[in-house]
Amino acid sequence: MMTHLLPNTPLRGIIPPLVTPLLDNDTLDVEGLERLIERLIAGGVHGLFILGTTGEAQSISYQLRRQMIEETARINRGRLPLLVCISDTSITESLNLARLAEQQGADAVVSAPPYYYAPSQVELAEFYLDLAERLPLPLFLYNMPSHTKVSFDAATVRAIARHPRVIGFKDSSANAVYFQSVMTAMSDRPDFALLMGPEEITGEAVLMGAHGGINGGANMFPQLYVHLYEAAACGNLEELRRLQRIVMRISSTIYTVGRFGSSYLKGVKCALSLLGICNDHMAAPFYKFKEPERERVRQAIIDILKEKL
Amino acid sequence: MMTHLLPNTPLRGIIPPLVTPLLDNDTLDVEGLERLIERLIAGGVHGLFILGTTGEAQSISYQLRRQMIEETARINRGRLPLLVCISDTSITESLNLARLAEQQGADAVVSAPPYYYAPSQVELAEFYLDLAERLPLPLFLYNMPSHTKVSFDAATVRAIARHPRVIGFKDSSANAVYFQSVMTAMSDRPDFALLMGPEEITGEAVLMGAHGGINGGANMFPQLYVHLYEAAACGNLEELRRLQRIVMRISSTIYTVGRFGSSYLKGVKCALSLLGICNDHMAAPFYKFKEPERERVRQAIIDILKEKL
Amino acid sequence: MMTHLLPNTPLRGIIPPLVTPLLDNDTLDVEGLERLIERLIAGGVHGLFILGTTGEAQSISYQLRRQMIEETARINRGRLPLLVCISDTSITESLNLARLAEQQGADAVVSAPPYYYAPSQVELAEFYLDLAERLPLPLFLYNMPSHTKVSFDAATVRAIARHPRVIGFKDSSANAVYFQSVMTAMSDRPDFALLMGPEEITGEAVLMGAHGGINGGANMFPQLYVHLYEAAACGNLEELRRLQRIVMRISSTIYTVGRFGSSYLKGVKCALSLLGICNDHMAAPFYKFKEPERERVRQAIIDILKEKL
Amino acid sequence: MMTHLLPNTPLRGIIPPLVTPLLDNDTLDVEGLERLIERLIAGGVHGLFILGTTGEAQSISYQLRRQMIEETARINRGRLPLLVCISDTSITESLNLARLAEQQGADAVVSAPPYYYAPSQVELAEFYLDLAERLPLPLFLYNMPSHTKVSFDAATVRAIARHPRVIGFKDSSANAVYFQSVMTAMSDRPDFALLMGPEEITGEAVLMGAHGGINGGANMFPQLYVHLYEAAACGNLEELRRLQRIVMRISSTIYTVGRFGSSYLKGVKCALSLLGICNDHMAAPFYKFKEPERERVRQAIIDILKEKL
Repeated sequence: MMTHLLPNTPLRGIIPPLVTPLLDNDTLDVEGLERLIERLIAGGVHGLFILGTTGEAQSISYQLRRQMIEETARINRGRLPLLVCISDTSITESLNLARLAEQQGADAVVSAPPYYYAPSQVELAEFYLDLAERLPLPLFLYNMPSHTKVSFDAATVRAIARHPRVIGFKDSSANAVYFQSVMTAMSDRPDFALLMGPEEITGEAVLMGAHGGINGGANMFPQLYVHLYEAAACGNLEELRRLQRIVMRISSTIYTVGRFGSSYLKGVKCALSLLGICNDHMAAPFYKFKEPERERVRQAIIDILKEKL
Repeated sequence: MMTHLLPNTPLRGIIPPLVTPLLDNDTLDVEGLERLIERLIAGGVHGLFILGTTGEAQSISYQLRRQMIEETARINRGRLPLLVCISDTSITESLNLARLAEQQGADAVVSAPPYYYAPSQVELAEFYLDLAERLPLPLFLYNMPSHTKVSFDAATVRAIARHPRVIGFKDSSANAVYFQSVMTAMSDRPDFALLMGPEEITGEAVLMGAHGGINGGANMFPQLYVHLYEAAACGNLEELRRLQRIVMRISSTIYTVGRFGSSYLKGVKCALSLLGICNDHMAAPFYKFKEPERERVRQAIIDILKEKL
Repeated sequence: MMTHLLPNTPLRGIIPPLVTPLLDNDTLDVEGLERLIERLIAGGVHGLFILGTTGEAQSISYQLRRQMIEETARINRGRLPLLVCISDTSITESLNLARLAEQQGADAVVSAPPYYYAPSQVELAEFYLDLAERLPLPLFLYNMPSHTKVSFDAATVRAIARHPRVIGFKDSSANAVYFQSVMTAMSDRPDFALLMGPEEITGEAVLMGAHGGINGGANMFPQLYVHLYEAAACGNLEELRRLQRIVMRISSTIYTVGRFGSSYLKGVKCALSLLGICNDHMAAPFYKFKEPERERVRQAIIDILKEKL
Repeated sequence: MMTHLLPNTPLRGIIPPLVTPLLDNDTLDVEGLERLIERLIAGGVHGLFILGTTGEAQSISYQLRRQMIEETARINRGRLPLLVCISDTSITESLNLARLAEQQGADAVVSAPPYYYAPSQVELAEFYLDLAERLPLPLFLYNMPSHTKVSFDAATVRAIARHPRVIGFKDSSANAVYFQSVMTAMSDRPDFALLMGPEEITGEAVLMGAHGGINGGANMFPQLYVHLYEAAACGNLEELRRLQRIVMRISSTIYTVGRFGSSYLKGVKCALSLLGICNDHMAAPFYKFKEPERERVRQAIIDILKEKL
């Protein structure tokens, strides 16, 4: 299968990190996944990213991760670039997932650092150079220090990116000074994709030269984030600020309903259930919202849908 | 003395956090301070901010802090708004500094949370409402979690800002998602100033609606940061990106010469010494750069001065 | 197979967390494992604990983890209680490992919290009550906040321990105040085993009422740790202090040779290689010591072997 | 005045970190302080430690800190060794406090690292060697990483302790592995005092060779902690475990009544008020317990007083 990724050209746009729709802890909601993907494609997103943090990949079994790869590839039918997250604590298991991704026609893989033992920067560079050498697909690095306990130094990103198979970087640290430092370290590499995780700062990142966002909110409202990206990419500040206010309303309502660190994940899945897209079952150790949290998400959605997205 | 701060109007622009020029641990470099302030005023900055983190306030004695307030007020002669940081672990000592600031004609005070005991959000709100009530001057809140161990929740900022004496907020967390959440929480308060600490993200913050930056680099190159602010404030993206590249070159050279967390402070003071502005003595527990670090800063300055700032 | 664990009686003594001897990233050093286990049994240890942090479980593939369970069970031949660590981010994969452990005749399983997403205390309790209900073997909780990012509150331990299948707790936090608080919370449960991870404080923990230690150093010098435990258990303070000095010499030499957080793991494996027990290959993302680190470990071993262990 | 500290002999025993009794934020409760000190001396404690973390030193003004030194010295009349904590962010202010302490007849000073800017280990060593050189009294180092953000490496303690004026070390990290590593690093210095902060682990620390405890609970029940120390120092394990259970009951009741990190401080002051010793006013940013927290502390005290302390 031909890849969507062009040589020497960074991937651009909104690539939603898909939730993994579940009927129970071990059963994929395949129909929900179909509705989700069709909606994302209709909404104009620029790629699909599965088995990331929003996808609860670490919480589900390997069998389910494999099924998620297969079903997504089947439903996508090559319409959009498909990125598969292979983050694991074991390089062998990462490679196992990558091989399946390649067989299923994925365009690239994405990897956050091993998240049990914390490697040093030297070990991180060696790990990724070894991984890149053995991968059957291009690789995006994924910085997620709140979950992995380590952050790629800008110099480490630069060192790893010397490998020709390493084609981009996603930052979910929320630290914009850090992101600027990575952008600066990679400024002589116009082919290298710099993608922002948190949707709250995707607009400003794109204004300053980033290539796009891997934004969880796009599961719910794909058009909104596509328009936000477009407004930023063409420097339409007025429209960007209007859309940013809606993005922040989502962030300050749907993502903050619960008391715990998992509120964002629960909020997105709850909203998708309310929108009729997929089941809101959460894999252990998390549990879906009950009424009255659900009612608060419902009210937030009603308010948001009054806006021009 | 009349204040520069207009009612119901946020303070805008570049307000450099002045270094405290020292001859030794207990002696102010008064001539250096004069040169520094004249250069800042000539460079077009919009205010002066003293005794902040860049000013090593916590490392110097109270007598020296008082002298710094008096000398700065004397040199400034009311030409620019003067903000005095009164962060302390003791509310009584904060009030002592604030009274002197008021006597010397300062326009406002700035305060980061008590930094030995970590208060809860409830205690933080009570502390600041009590402080605001007793202050003789308007107050800016200062978020600096890397040094104080606590961060103002967006809701806490909103609660404290109900007090009429609380007129603005400076964020040095580097967490742009957090800053967006505070901007959103304060979106119905157009009179409330939202100022960015790290210069690396002042441009994007202003593009998204912030009012200015309290940028340490402006000690060295005031015009550069004023131009960066102006480019962002009027939406000139091309010029902003050009200036941002220079700001990032400063950040990735002058601020990263040493091995330790204090590299930024040492770099700024070393550069000011090389530029002939003031002495580079550092108060304990820090020590100034030796030659070869000094040589590296010198090279960085030479490169930066080739650019149009 | 009959279990070694007696009803209403806590497991006591030294239960070494076995290294996983490797020939390369995906190949078990079976002969090394045999030598290791025979040496541990000859050294008088009170149980075997596999696939823990010292066992690099998260770094190796599931196939290798399964082989490690099978080979250890085969070599052990039921001579000692066998504890299998099933820590995983996915409850389904934890249960898969537990079922194999049960089939192979293990006596109990051990589990640290999911280590990618950080659960709240409520979610932690629900997760473990669900896990315990579905497990085929008794369960020890494993507190390892440096790696999992979450710590069991003492009240959470108490809540989970109400399930009859939850029979003990291992603490590797190094926070002795915390361990005392858990001991206090469980003081009406004399059947519940309280085991210390770090060997540096196993002696004092046992003096204060803990039941034993899961000490990595016992891979190298099983007798030393057994004697330390016995001295503490019978209140022989003089002998305990003598042995403690040797334990601290190991800790301050073999475990601190390298620069990184993984020095302990590398030191233990390097020492085992020098002692002729097993290969010192480390699974990614870690790498074994090179000469000259190896030489420093060699010197440390020579010094330690001069002592009466 | 002759000092209580003997040459080449470590300070031993229970040295309570006194609360600072307050009538309001700026007024010392002098009568309360008198009752407190008399009770401590009657209870058999081995020294007095003022202006530490339990003493809310950072929250009160310098004038009040000076008054606290003067009043304590006056009340003590040289009966017990007096240690004055001079922790500050400014070395000049630390020296100011130390000079007053010396004039008032204190025996030694205690210092935790500067707590706004975080020094590196090299800077920490230079800071303390400079401080020691200029101090008029012997110095105890104070490790308190939860409040100062930095921890003394064991090697740094050893390096600083080469200065003849540095005579001991207090650890409040709660990390017993760390404390063992410092004890090991100082094992050739029998003259150097190793003191434990948290009372929950003072017993086991003394069993393993520490010289005493700086235990906040001794403000309330001095005899209990003196007996705990004596039981540990003479190896009476049975009595130690009995007393340890009472210490843990205090820790798990009086110190955990509130929701916030300051529960310990509030609990101790509330208990002292209920015991009729001193006022329970807390300096900003903290606030004293209200009924019903006060009622819970009352019940805890009643239970504890049923025991033989």
